[in-house]
Order: sequence, then structure tokens, then C-alpha cells
Amino acid sequence: MPEEAIATRDAAVQPPLRLEEDAIGTRLIQDSVAYGIQTVRATENFSISGRTIADIEGFVPAILTIKLAAARANHKAGDLDGRLADAIEVAALEQLRGIRREDYPVDIYHGGGGTAANMNVNEVLANRASEILTGRKGFDPVHPNTHVNMSQSTNDVIPAAMKISVGNELSKLKDVLTGLIGVLADKERELADAVKLARTCLQDALPITFAQQFSGYRAAFERQARELEVSEMACCGLPLGATAVGTGFGASADYRRLVYEELQALTDTHYHQEENLFDALQNADHWIRVSAVLKAIAITLSKLSADLRLMASGPRAGFGEISLPAVQPGSSIMPGKVNPVMPEMIMQVAFRVIGNDATVTRAAEGELDLNVWESIILEAISESIRLLRQGISLFVDRCLSGVQVNVDRTQDDASRSLALSTALAAIYGYPAASAVAKHAALQGLSVRHAAIACGLMNEREADDLFADISVFADPNRCANLIASFRRLVSGSTMQRPSAGVGP
Amino acid sequence: MPEEAIATRDAAVQPPLRLEEDAIGTRLIQDSVAYGIQTVRATENFSISGRTIADIEGFVPAILTIKLAAARANHKAGDLDGRLADAIEVAALEQLRGIRREDYPVDIYHGGGGTAANMNVNEVLANRASEILTGRKGFDPVHPNTHVNMSQSTNDVIPAAMKISVGNELSKLKDVLTGLIGVLADKERELADAVKLARTCLQDALPITFAQQFSGYRAAFERQARELEVSEMACCGLPLGATAVGTGFGASADYRRLVYEELQALTDTHYHQEENLFDALQNADHWIRVSAVLKAIAITLSKLSADLRLMASGPRAGFGEISLPAVQPGSSIMPGKVNPVMPEMIMQVAFRVIGNDATVTRAAEGELDLNVWESIILEAISESIRLLRQGISLFVDRCLSGVQVNVDRTQDDASRSLALSTALAAIYGYPAASAVAKHAALQGLSVRHAAIACGLMNEREADDLFADISVFADPNRCANLIASFRRLVSGSTMQRPSAGVGP
Amino acid sequence: MPEEAIATRDAAVQPPLRLEEDAIGTRLIQDSVAYGIQTVRATENFSISGRTIADIEGFVPAILTIKLAAARANHKAGDLDGRLADAIEVAALEQLRGIRREDYPVDIYHGGGGTAANMNVNEVLANRASEILTGRKGFDPVHPNTHVNMSQSTNDVIPAAMKISVGNELSKLKDVLTGLIGVLADKERELADAVKLARTCLQDALPITFAQQFSGYRAAFERQARELEVSEMACCGLPLGATAVGTGFGASADYRRLVYEELQALTDTHYHQEENLFDALQNADHWIRVSAVLKAIAITLSKLSADLRLMASGPRAGFGEISLPAVQPGSSIMPGKVNPVMPEMIMQVAFRVIGNDATVTRAAEGELDLNVWESIILEAISESIRLLRQGISLFVDRCLSGVQVNVDRTQDDASRSLALSTALAAIYGYPAASAVAKHAALQGLSVRHAAIACGLMNEREADDLFADISVFADPNRCANLIASFRRLVSGSTMQRPSAGVGP
Amino acid sequence: MPEEAIATRDAAVQPPLRLEEDAIGTRLIQDSVAYGIQTVRATENFSISGRTIADIEGFVPAILTIKLAAARANHKAGDLDGRLADAIEVAALEQLRGIRREDYPVDIYHGGGGTAANMNVNEVLANRASEILTGRKGFDPVHPNTHVNMSQSTNDVIPAAMKISVGNELSKLKDVLTGLIGVLADKERELADAVKLARTCLQDALPITFAQQFSGYRAAFERQARELEVSEMACCGLPLGATAVGTGFGASADYRRLVYEELQALTDTHYHQEENLFDALQNADHWIRVSAVLKAIAITLSKLSADLRLMASGPRAGFGEISLPAVQPGSSIMPGKVNPVMPEMIMQVAFRVIGNDATVTRAAEGELDLNVWESIILEAISESIRLLRQGISLFVDRCLSGVQVNVDRTQDDASRSLALSTALAAIYGYPAASAVAKHAALQGLSVRHAAIACGLMNEREADDLFADISVFADPNRCANLIASFRRLVSGSTMQRPSAGVGP
Repeated sequence: MPEEAIATRDAAVQPPLRLEEDAIGTRLIQDSVAYGIQTVRATENFSISGRTIADIEGFVPAILTIKLAAARANHKAGDLDGRLADAIEVAALEQLRGIRREDYPVDIYHGGGGTAANMNVNEVLANRASEILTGRKGFDPVHPNTHVNMSQSTNDVIPAAMKISVGNELSKLKDVLTGLIGVLADKERELADAVKLARTCLQDALPITFAQQFSGYRAAFERQARELEVSEMACCGLPLGATAVGTGFGASADYRRLVYEELQALTDTHYHQEENLFDALQNADHWIRVSAVLKAIAITLSKLSADLRLMASGPRAGFGEISLPAVQPGSSIMPGKVNPVMPEMIMQVAFRVIGNDATVTRAAEGELDLNVWESIILEAISESIRLLRQGISLFVDRCLSGVQVNVDRTQDDASRSLALSTALAAIYGYPAASAVAKHAALQGLSVRHAAIACGLMNEREADDLFADISVFADPNRCANLIASFRRLVSGSTMQRPSAGVGP
Repeated sequence: MPEEAIATRDAAVQPPLRLEEDAIGTRLIQDSVAYGIQTVRATENFSISGRTIADIEGFVPAILTIKLAAARANHKAGDLDGRLADAIEVAALEQLRGIRREDYPVDIYHGGGGTAANMNVNEVLANRASEILTGRKGFDPVHPNTHVNMSQSTNDVIPAAMKISVGNELSKLKDVLTGLIGVLADKERELADAVKLARTCLQDALPITFAQQFSGYRAAFERQARELEVSEMACCGLPLGATAVGTGFGASADYRRLVYEELQALTDTHYHQEENLFDALQNADHWIRVSAVLKAIAITLSKLSADLRLMASGPRAGFGEISLPAVQPGSSIMPGKVNPVMPEMIMQVAFRVIGNDATVTRAAEGELDLNVWESIILEAISESIRLLRQGISLFVDRCLSGVQVNVDRTQDDASRSLALSTALAAIYGYPAASAVAKHAALQGLSVRHAAIACGLMNEREADDLFADISVFADPNRCANLIASFRRLVSGSTMQRPSAGVGP
Repeated sequence: MPEEAIATRDAAVQPPLRLEEDAIGTRLIQDSVAYGIQTVRATENFSISGRTIADIEGFVPAILTIKLAAARANHKAGDLDGRLADAIEVAALEQLRGIRREDYPVDIYHGGGGTAANMNVNEVLANRASEILTGRKGFDPVHPNTHVNMSQSTNDVIPAAMKISVGNELSKLKDVLTGLIGVLADKERELADAVKLARTCLQDALPITFAQQFSGYRAAFERQARELEVSEMACCGLPLGATAVGTGFGASADYRRLVYEELQALTDTHYHQEENLFDALQNADHWIRVSAVLKAIAITLSKLSADLRLMASGPRAGFGEISLPAVQPGSSIMPGKVNPVMPEMIMQVAFRVIGNDATVTRAAEGELDLNVWESIILEAISESIRLLRQGISLFVDRCLSGVQVNVDRTQDDASRSLALSTALAAIYGYPAASAVAKHAALQGLSVRHAAIACGLMNEREADDLFADISVFADPNRCANLIASFRRLVSGSTMQRPSAGVGP
Repeated sequence: MPEEAIATRDAAVQPPLRLEEDAIGTRLIQDSVAYGIQTVRATENFSISGRTIADIEGFVPAILTIKLAAARANHKAGDLDGRLADAIEVAALEQLRGIRREDYPVDIYHGGGGTAANMNVNEVLANRASEILTGRKGFDPVHPNTHVNMSQSTNDVIPAAMKISVGNELSKLKDVLTGLIGVLADKERELADAVKLARTCLQDALPITFAQQFSGYRAAFERQARELEVSEMACCGLPLGATAVGTGFGASADYRRLVYEELQALTDTHYHQEENLFDALQNADHWIRVSAVLKAIAITLSKLSADLRLMASGPRAGFGEISLPAVQPGSSIMPGKVNPVMPEMIMQVAFRVIGNDATVTRAAEGELDLNVWESIILEAISESIRLLRQGISLFVDRCLSGVQVNVDRTQDDASRSLALSTALAAIYGYPAASAVAKHAALQGLSVRHAAIACGLMNEREADDLFADISVFADPNRCANLIASFRRLVSGSTMQRPSAGVGP
């Protein structure tokens, strides 16, 4: 436990110590430690998950960026001495070049609505800024609360940093999703003519092409990529300027304007103040929407993965429509077995994302003037994004892009489907077609043969209708074919085919 | 059990029967029954919940509207005889004037992706249309599959009807939400000057006005009303024209265009075909988003309700900030007790909406070419909307609009808060203010008195700063006040107030 | 809306009215109405779901039973006049012979922790008991609070009634589950020799019998039936005697003992007081456990249903292992299609049960001295039980008991599986078997033929090993067969078969 | 990425390499690496979460223990050469003395039902055992599949290891819970006489003692500790002997018996074979129950934490009943603020446990002969246990054990409660008491004074009844007091007190 080493009062054989004080009392801290007393307390109080604020992608950098923008804004507003502002800026820029995990040891499961996280950064910057100005760490002349946190509160800094960091991660997820969309589009081109049987309720239905099936996945991910963009934009509205309870207590009007100008300059992103700052602190429904988008992506990925597993089932006693790249031997006992491990990895990611959504749902309801559950929301949302990003990349590379279609089998399956009787229904009416389908099922015939056997059409007509089943996957060719047959039928005396149809 | 009466084979003492046939076999049905054999089977197979498709607001009417539009489109496309089309139209318009619950007895928990629901409507219309043309019910000359269902499939009709009906219900929910927003705005005007204490982490924080607090709820509901609108618009994209598996098998190109023109004409709503019809049948992530919006509303309502309960806690040994209208005696044993029953009703609605979201999440993943779980999605989403609509109306009328503020108490509470030391921090720095706050806490003093006792300011200064705490709830007045004090301090010799502050 | 008719103040052309009073004020009520003023208020405040306390199986009867037991206990304890006690008893017994839905109109979504439900019953009994004694309804001489509710509080009556009613429903669910277990056991006997291929990760694995597979479902349901019994027993611990907050305020020691004696006498069930009454009112984790058992049943049913769908997939281009009874035509457009509608109904039930568990989870956390969310818990749990009961019955009758196995196909599939190479691995080591499996896969051979082709064994040996694959599904026969081959191999010179194996 | 370094084919400047082969192909691996080719593939395929099988408490040790027991059992059964068995045993015992995280790098999100995890251990042991026998790593003479995995399959080893490791962790959680129960019991003794007001629906109710309130928490945790024990015992039933699909293919009857004897000898725990091995592989409902117990604990902890927050609300403008230890300054902007950070940490743990339950629920449904989602179940369950264990320890030490009661305030609050009128109701009937309560509320009087003012009792009687409100928290003293008053009243002429009561 680091705190014992850090906070010992026996300085004899120890490295240099410094004495720090907060509202609770005093502590001796190893002088090499970058943070201060409140962070020490936080490590003692909250070390339960092994995951710290430094483990959340972009979170500490987002707080640092806010601190930097605030220092500049406070200085320009005339509230912060230039020498102190400069020192804070230098310290923040140093940190932004790459943080050390051990400098931000606050567990992500900290209570208090993020105070410990905010103070961890305040303390690191105050120590370093003071050191820049005086040669030694400490909170004089730069104080973590008075100066680094000036015009701010945990209540506006932490939700703002969450939105900045999550917004950036959503953007990266969108890029990965765009890659997935590209591979699906490639597959569509590759499989434009590969006919297979569609299934509804897992029962043989009408022919489609693999390209059509894959276009369905693609269209869903395209919609979700657009939703990610909407979420990303919503992450640009920040509560900075609200300070403690939304009234902006302690922040000047100039600061409240300037901090956004500085943030925009630093990040080249259109961050702006949320419309209603009381709402911004009270309500966390923004994260419900973000989590819903992640959940939609996860569920679509899970469906795609489950479909791949199902189509690859077999290899002999299953659907056997496709083969997935073999990336891992499939069994410790059964030689030659290969499992759909990449889809299964993705499905487990989806199950976790669904669980994270339940956590976000529960945490999204705060009370009175603040939602204090934002740490766990951040943990859950960040994990979902991370798992999706990493998972999609591996899944695309090691599975999706290598899917092989067993064309002969799928073509054959499509030809034998009883649902081809739907073409007869469109031409001769449902009852006549139903009789043919029944005959085909009982006798193990193709619909083509059964239609002839039932006397519904002669062999030439049957050949014309069923010669190329790929036509049934093309709306216009199919409509024309059926229309031509309907004309044929209405020109004949077969007015009421249902009456006498039978083998 | 109605099916026994309906489907008996003993016609001796029974009302007139008719014989019907489907792919499974034949059944004698009481001739007075509006539906047909497949619906009879459905009632036998699926009667488990007591809730039928007729219980889902607007669902059967939406199917009827589609059938009507389809009949017109099929006729115009040259595929459906005018006499049959007219009869279907008359029958559909009759039904649209008001359906009878007993004519649509299919349980909402039916399998098969909605086939039973679609066939129920097909059968009712075919029976009635045939009756119009021939004087007797039956499927000749109008057949439920061949004619009423022409160019359609359950797979496109049912999701389309879901979107139409849910879209309409979302619109009504938006209206109710707008009413709630209006009442909150009224409260803001009424309570513009009523100061109270904000709480963060349930601990005394800085002063705000009730108006500010209520504006936070309002802003959230306004955002959610906008989200409802987005969802409503997304409900206008329909899969009609996809037929069974997205290829449009059996539907002519003319029909696929005309059915939307007819729908628009009938409803005055811009229904249009979804971009990718394979996606439209495969994926149900649309409903995840709709459910997320409903969940966000529910959670915000739950928070508002919980806040009202908390602020009304007491009346003597609690927060006691507000009083809720007494609408119900509160206890069977404790006389004089009045409970916050309306907020509690709403919170239970929210818990149900959260449960429905879990159901939708689970059902949103279909497989291969169709999601067949749309019945349970419809049941869950419709229930959430219904409960929110009814719940919000009653909650607004019987609780929110009658909230009374206990102004004296909240003003007094605000004056005594230790967090007023934040003003000292903004002026004299955090350490000095912290010392004052500690002294006030230990001695039971107000911050004003403690600041004087600690020698941080004299009485006149203290009066100037703390005379009207409502100033702290106003960003600009507050900033000016603090700025004037900062000038005062920086002009004085009190450079490092933290050093010597103490009582 | 019934309340308008009921509560009108215009008595001119109306039926006889009576004036009632409660802590909120007075109301004129139609004298024919069985309940009283607080119930009228409840119908005005809470009518949102269309579902009332009368719709929850056994709930109102459970409250009535408690009231009856309490009246007897209060009388025996010397606290309630015998004449009043007798009248309450007669009234309660009347109601227990069959309640009228319209007498118990309180919406299940009522706030206040069940006060409205408790008072509804108190009022009905007080009215009727007074009527028995005086010839007219009213709360004199029998008062709903003073007499009917004597020694009770909503806080102990409602949770007690929940446990009684849910306990009874769990018992009925257990009976239905026992029926399902019986049908599975029948299937096991019927299919003891029917060999099929097991699949892991949806890939062909080793042979098993259908009986073995079905025994897995049965064993799970047997475990869950035992869990239902544990839950049922836990429902016998009641908080009666706790009154308002657990202290038993207002209830005599005699009553607290006698009420359980009376309950046991009335129900022949060992109801007893919970160990800690503060716990009993504060905590609702009991319902988390009950809901978890229901969820486990639902998920096992969903798996069984999904497995049936998968095994029945096809009929031609899928697994095609089994056929389900055709109970409903499967498509409005595709003739001859039959869908697994019964499994799909059950799966949707499971999705609802999962949603209900999320609702229960959210509602299970109360605050301070009472959990006031028990109404929604009751609604959710009761619905889950109802849907499972009804669903299982229909599913067993119309699907499971009629499952037909396509023996030829499954036997053939099992023979062709590459996983039969596992037998070679057990004898010759994994590497040698792996080489054979690879060869079989590439050449499209059976494992038997590939083993010969690779020179691992001669034809006679191969015949001995693979002649009857059903042996592989029998642990002991299989172990003996492998042992005999191992002896053969270790007796030969083939010490390191992996080295030279190859075709 | 370590795999690049590991698997490079350029051995020139590299450390010594070895060539390995599996069914997919060959790889050169750094000879210093403890695992083998399949593990290398796994690190390439699945590295998405940063969490490996080594991060799950006790999981790898459990697999190692199974391997050791299996080697002994296989040897005794005559299937495994003694020299190889001994080498495996030595290797396993070495590992069990302390595993190195880098030797078990398989990401917890691996597909394939755990094959990669099982093979990782098989490879480490085969390498090391071969090294023991020959001086060099490699799979000869000890092969990971043929020897280390003998008579086993991933399908029985992984679920068995899960149950062993989770069972052990549940036991540790139970110990921590027992500590919490002890502290609550201490608090009960400490606060046996501290009277406070109970609240129902957050409204002032009747007096109780803090001890009574705390006993409610304790009783719930005691129940949950018992549930943990039941779960722990259920974790002793293992599927070992099932091998791949439940038939025990490849495992001798002797092994199937001996492996449990060896396991019991190694662990001193009564591990035994599950009753039905097909069930054991198919179904994961066991984990639903375990997760439900964890969820019940989490929700009870969350309630306790929320109650502490509420009772500590203020310090001035809230309930102010208790003070929590100050362990962390509460605000970066508001001096002197102290937040209930430990309860807030625990509540966030609870939200995560709830999310994990949703993940487990989703993953608990496998398909056909195996549930392949056990990795994510293990991750979720293990995390819940870990967070609860760590969280409870810190919460007890740093918060619960230091709770201080503000006795004067709570006593005063209890005295002023209008709900004391319940005593009047018990004596004089509900209507009379209701009138008194109304008068007290309107006039701001105590119930005692209002009862006198209304003429219900004289001052002496009022003193007798209300002198010591602690009597109302004691069932028997309270019952006696009320009984004595009832006798008084029934002896007087006040038969119908409701009539004339009024101020």
C-alpha cells in the first residue's frame, strides 16, 4: 500500500517529506509525490477497483485542458495574477505531453461527485506551478483551490471533462465503425451475385443475395455512425461557468465567456456553454442517450456475429453457408474443430455493453441540484467504447474480411425452398400456391416439379418461371416476370385456379 | 374460452356456421364472427396475457390504414380488380370508424413475427368485403391473402403499423410533456424570488431560487420533447414494399411507389420508404432509441418526483421546504399523515419503463433476415408511452401545479448555510474561508458572525456581503459583489489572509 | 369514468347517496357502491394502467383473509367487541366466496405504499359489516380504520398479503413446471436410442442421444422447481404484528400471537412472523430472489425454445433435426411455410420476465423504515408468474409434446462428424487424430475413412471402432471400447503415432 | 504488442526460439515464454480488455488444481504413465505456489467457450513438465492435449474452475459481510436507547430506536450471508467427467470417480459431480442465482448508504440525525463542506453490480449442448464480488463504525411528530385521533397539547401517555400503556369519542 510509505511520519531514513494541511487535518507526504493531501486521503478511502482516473481514456487530459483554459480566462478577466497563470499553464502543458499513471491514483469509484478527481489535478498543478516559481513543491504561491480551481467547481469541471473525453472517444469509435462499414461494402461488391436463402423465423424463405443481406448490416451501422456524430456534438455543450450549483457563484461574467474561447483555441472544437446550467448539473439523461447508441451498435454487432455463427454452423451438420477464417484451434479434446471465436468475443462485448447500460440507467438519476454518480457513468460508458473499438478492429481483421461463401450449397438450398411457391401465389393466388407447396413438402419435390405435378403449369412455363432463381432477389426483374405470368394467366381461362388445383 | 363456442363442430343448436380452410386444415366457425380460421387458431395457441392487439393504442387502425392504402395502390398499379379494391376500401373505412375489441382477439404474445395479427385484419376485411359484394362472409371473391394482403407480407406490414401507431402515440406524449413544461414555467414565474439552499451530495450548498431549480427540470423535459420529435419523425420511415424478405417479391414497382402516396393522402403524414429494406426487416435498433427517450423522460420524472418527496419530507422532522396537495389520507393507522402519493405513483411508472427498456433491449436482437420479436417490443413501448401519458397528466393536475413553498423556512435555511463561506473563499482565498467555516461549524455560528469573530472582516463589511443572500443566486450581481470586495482586499494590506486567520 | 357517476353532488335524479368523510374532506357517494371515500379518491388519483388490485391473482383474497384473521385475533385478545368481529367475519367470508372486480378499483400503480389498497378492503368490509348490523352501509358501528384495520397497518398488511398471494401462485407455477418435467421425461424414454450430433459453439461435436439432450432441460427445470419450493416457503414468513414501523405500535401481544394461529387455521398453511420486523418492512430483497428464480425458469424455457427453433430450422436448408407440430400457417405471403410460433411466444414471455426483473431490481431499494414500491413489485412478479404459467401450459400441449425427430437425418449427421476423431485422440494421441481430422476435412471423407487412408488403422479396426456410433453416447461402453483399443495400441509398436501419420 | 516480439521469425539477434505447431499451422516462439502456440494465437485474437484470466481471483489456480487432480486420477486409472503424471504434478505445484501474470495472457473476452484459457494452462504445464523430464520446453514427452488435458475437455474444466474459484471468493465475501454484521450489532448495543422518528413515504411516522433501525439492516445481511453459504455449497457441484458434451467421451469410469477424490484431498472441500452432466454444460442458471444474491447484498448496501446520506443530510438544512466521519474535504469550491463519500462509493459499487447482473442475465442463455458465454459471466461475477469485498471493508472502517447520533435532535423530532396521534387512535378510535392530529397540524401544536386542547384528555392523562415517548418503540410497554388507557376509556362514558371531538 503506497499510502503507508507516502504518509509516514518517521522521516529519519525516509526521503524528504513535506507537510500538507486540509480541512480534515495535516499529513506528511513524500516530497517526490506529485499530488497532495486530498489525493492521499482519496487513495486511502477509495482503493477498491484497481482502476483509477488515469485509466479512463482522455479524462485526466480533459481536466488538464480545462484547468489551462481556466487559468488563461481568469487571468484575462483580471482575477488571476499573470505570474501564477503562466506557471499553471506551463505545468498543465507539461502534463498534457503525457501523464504518469502514478500521479493520478484516485480510484474511479470515488464518492463525492468527483471532488477527489478534480482535487488530484488541482494538487498536481499547484505543486508543479509552485515548484516552477519557487523551486519547491507546495501550495504557495499557487494554491490548488484558490488559484488552479479559480472560477470552477468540481460540479462543473468533472461533467465538462467527461463530455470532452467521451466525445473524443466516440469520434474514434466512429472511425472504427467506418472501417467496418467499408469492409461490409467490399463484401457486398464481392457477393453481388451470390444467391442464398433468406430465413424468417429460422424457416426457409425466399432467395436473396449475400450482398443484400450484408447491405442490411451496413445500413444499420451507417445509421449508428450518424447517431455517434449526434452524440459527439451533444458532448460539446459544457457546464463550465456553473461552478457549484449552476448560479456561477464565484465566477466572473468575463471568465464565463473567456473560458470557452480559450477551450476552443486549445482544442479546435466548438465547445460551448449548455443552455441551462441548473439542468446541466441536475440531469444526466445525456448519458442515457449515449449509452443507447452504444447499445444499438453492440446489439447490431451481436446480431451480425450470431448470424455468422449460424451461417457457419456445421461444417457438415448445420447451415454450412459460409466459412470463417480459422484463427484458433477449437477444442482441447476434439481434433479438427474450429470455433467462431471472433464472433463469440464480440457477443460477449455486447453483453457487457448491455450491462453497462443498466449501470448508466441506474446512475442517471441524481437528486436535487447535482447528479453525483458521474464517476460510475464515466467508467461504464468508457469501458463500452473501449471494448467496442478494440473488438470491432480485431473482428473485422480476423473474421469479417475473411468470410468465404460456400456458393454451391447456398444456391442449391435456395432452389429447393418451398417458399418459391410464393411466386405461384402472386400469379395464381394463395390457395392454389398453397396446395402446390403442400404437395412439394409431402413428396419431397421442388416447387417447380410440384407445380407441374399439380397441373398448375406445364414444363415450359415452369422452366420460364424457375430457370434462374436469382431473378427473385431482384425487385424489378421479379415484378416483371410475375407481371408477364399474370398477363398470361388472365388471358387464359384459368380464372379461379384455387378450385381444381391438385396433383 | 370463446374458441370452444366459436369452433364447435356441433351445429345442431348453434347459430349458423361457416366452414373455413387453411394450410393446416378446416374449421367450422360461427358465421357471426368477423374474423376467420387463422385467427381462431391464434386464439387457441396464444391466449396467455389477456391483452390483445386491439389493446395496443392505434395498432389495428394502423394495419387497417395500410390495407386500405395497399388496396388502392394495387388497383392503380393494375394488379387488383376495382370491384374488389372498392369492397376492401369500404370494409376498411367501416372498421376505421371504430373497431370492436372482440373482432381482434389475437394475444399480443403471439409468435411468428406478427403473422396472426396481420391475418386477423386480412380475415376481417376479406369477410366483410366479400359480404359487401355477395351478402355473405367468406373468402370469395375477396381472399385475405391473395387480395387483402396483395403486394404485402407480415414482415413489412407489421413493422410499418408499429411505426405508424407508436409515432402517433409519441406525438400525444409530447403534448402531455408540453403541458408539464408549461406548469413548470408557471412555477418559475411564481417562485422567481423564493430563495432556498441547493444541496450537492445531500449536503447544504449555496443559495439558489426555486425558479432556478425548476428551470432545470423544465430544460430537461424540453430537450426530451425535442427527442420525442426526432423519434416521431424516424417513425415515418416504413418498410412497406419489402414484402417477405426485403426484395419486394410479389410487389410491383408501381405499387411500391403508390402505396406511400395513398398512405400520405389518407394520413396527411409524410410516410416514406426506408432507405434499405433489408436493414428495415433485420434490425430493430430504432426501438432501442425510442425506448431510451422514454427512459430518459421516466428517469427525469422520477428525479423530479423524488426531489418533491424529499423537499416535502417532514412535515416537521425533514426538509420541510414545500407542501404537496393532500389528495389521499396517508395511513390506515397514523391519523393526520399525508403521503406524497402522486410522486410515488410516477416513480413506479418509471420503474416499469426501465423494465420495459430491458425487454426491448433483449428483443431488439433478431436473427438473419427478420426480427420476429416485434410484438413484445410493441407491447413494451406502448405500455411505457401509455403509463407516461396518463401518469404525467394526473401528476401535473394533482400534485405539481399545487406545490406550495414554505418560504420562511427555506430563506432561513439558506442564511444559515456554512457554504456561504464560498464567498469568503472567492475574496480571501480558500484557506482563510475554510478556517472561518470550521469556526462557524464548531461554534454553531453563521458564516457572517464567524467571519467577524475570526477577524477576517468587520461588521460593516460582513453586512455588505451577507445582507441579501438572494444576490448569491444571481450570477451577475454576485460577480459584481465579489469583484468589489476583491478590489477592496487587494487595495488593503491583507495580501496573504490565510496566514493569520482565526478566531 | 366511474368516479364522476359515483361522486356527483347532484342527487336529484340520482340513486340514493351517502355522505362520507375522511381527513381530506367529505364526499357524496352512490349508496350502491361497496367501497368508501378513500377508494373514491384513489380512483381519481391513480387511474393510469387499467389494471387494478383485483387483477392480481389472489391479492384481494389474501387481504380479506388477513382481515378475517385479525378480527378473530382482536376479539380473542379482548380488543374488539364480539358483535363487530362477527360482522366483519361474515362480510369477509362473503367476499372470499368471490370478489367483484368493480368493488376493488384501486389502480395497481398507486402511491403511498399500498394504503389505498388496504383502505379499499377496509372500506368494503366496514360498509358491509355495518350493513349486516344496521341494515345500511356506512362506517358506524364498524369503522374501516378503528375496527377492520385494528392492530394492523398498511405497512404490515400489504407485504403480508403479497407474500400470501404470490406464494400461492408460485405453487401453481410449480405444478405447471412439474407437468413440463413429465413431458420431457416422456420424451427421454421415447428417444432413448435416437442418436444425434451435439454442437458446441454451434459446430459439429460428438454424438449424444436426444434423450441425453432432453435430460439436460429436465434437470434444469427440476432444480428450478426446487427453488420455487424454497421461495414458496420463504413467502410464509409475514410481517403481521409490525403495524406501522415494526414496533407493533397499537397491537397487543396477544393479537400478535393469535393472528398467526387464526391465519394458519383459515389457510392450513404454516404462516409465521418474520424474525425481525424492522427488516421485514425496510427490505424487499426477498423479491429479488423470487424474481431470480422466475428469470432462471424463463431463460431455461427460452433456451429450450431457441433450441427447438434451431433444430427445426429448414425444413430443407437448416438443421432439420426435428419437426414441430404445425399449429398456425406461417406466412401471409409464402404458402406452405410453418413457423415455430409456440417457442416464439415463450421466448417473448421470457423477454418480459427479464424486463420485470429489472423493474423489481429498481423497486427493491426502499428508504429508511419502509419500502413503498411494493405495488409495482407485486405487479411485475405476478405478471411473470401468470405469463409463465399460461405460456408453459400452451407450449407443452401445442409444441413440446408433439416434437418429432427426423431420425435418419440426425443419425447420418452424427456419422459424418469430424469430431469422431476424438476417439482417435483418446487412443493414438491428439496430434495423430488431428492429422486425420484435417485429412477428412480436406477430402470430404468420414473420420473412419480418413483414419484408414492415413494409415492409422486398418479397415477391420476402423469397423470395430466406428461400427455403432451410439456407443460414443454411452460413457461406459465408450470407455471400454477406447480402453480395449488403447491396450491394442500399447501392445503394438506404434509408440509415437504422431510422428508418421499422414495420408 | 508482445506477440510480435515473441513470434518473430527472425532469430538472428533474438533470444533462442522454439518451433510449435497446431491445427492451424506453425509458429516460432521465444523459448523463454512459458506458454505455447495456441496461447500466442489467443493473445493476437482477443486482446481487447486489458484484463486476462490471471486477473480473475483464483481462476488460474483452480484450473491448475484440476489439472493436478486429473493427472493423479488418470495415473491411478491406468491411463497416464507415472513419469508423465509426476512431471505434470511437479509443474502444477510449482505454479500453485504463485503464478506470474505474464504466463497467462489470454484476455478474459475470449471466444470459444474457454478453450484458450484451458489451453494456456495445458501449454504452460506441458512445457514445464517436458522441461522437467528433458531439460527443454516443448510438448514432448508431455503433450498439452494428450496428457495434461487427458480425460478432460474445456467444456468441463472451465465451468468447474469457475465454480471452484467463485466459490472461494464467495466465502471471503461472506467473511467481510460477517464483519459488517458485527459492526451493526455493536451499533445496536450502543444505540439501544437512542430514540428517533421512523419515516414511511419520507413522512414523519412513529418513534423507534436507532438500534431497531440498525437491526433491520443487520437482519437483512444475516439472511444474505446465509444465501452466500447456499451459493458457496452449490459451487461444489462440478461437471468434471463430462468432457466435451456430457457423455464423458474419452474419460474412464475410474477417472470420473478418482478425479473427485483427488480434488477433495487437494482442497479439503467436498467437490462432487453434478447430478446431470448434460444440464451442467447446457445451463448457466446457477450464475443467475449467484448474481441475484450479490445483487441483493448490493441493494441492501445501497439502501443503508442512502439512508446514512439522508440521515446525515444538512448539517443544518436537512435531517441532521447523524454525523458521518469526515474522511475527505467535500468541495473544491465550498470550504467546510464534508460529503458522505464512503456511502457514495458503495452506491456506485451497487450500480455496477446491478449492471453485472444484466450481463449475467444476457449471457446465461446458451444454445444446444453448451453455454459458451461463461468467460463474461466469470468476469462479471468476479468483479461484483471483488468490488463488494473491498467496498464493504473500507465502508465499515471509514464510515459505518464512526457514525455519531445527534441524540438531542432526534429525540426532539420524535416528540413533535403528529404520528403520535396513533396512540390516540388506538385508544379513542381513528376519527377522534384524526381530529386531534388535524388541530395539531394547523396550530403547530404537539399531539399532547392538541389532545388537551380538543378535550380528548386532561393534562394528567396526557402526561401519562406522552411522558416518555421511548415507550412507543417497545411493543410490550406500548401495548400495556394503551391497554390501560383503553380500560380507562371503556370504563368512562366516552363511548363514541369521534362525535364531539374538537378544539
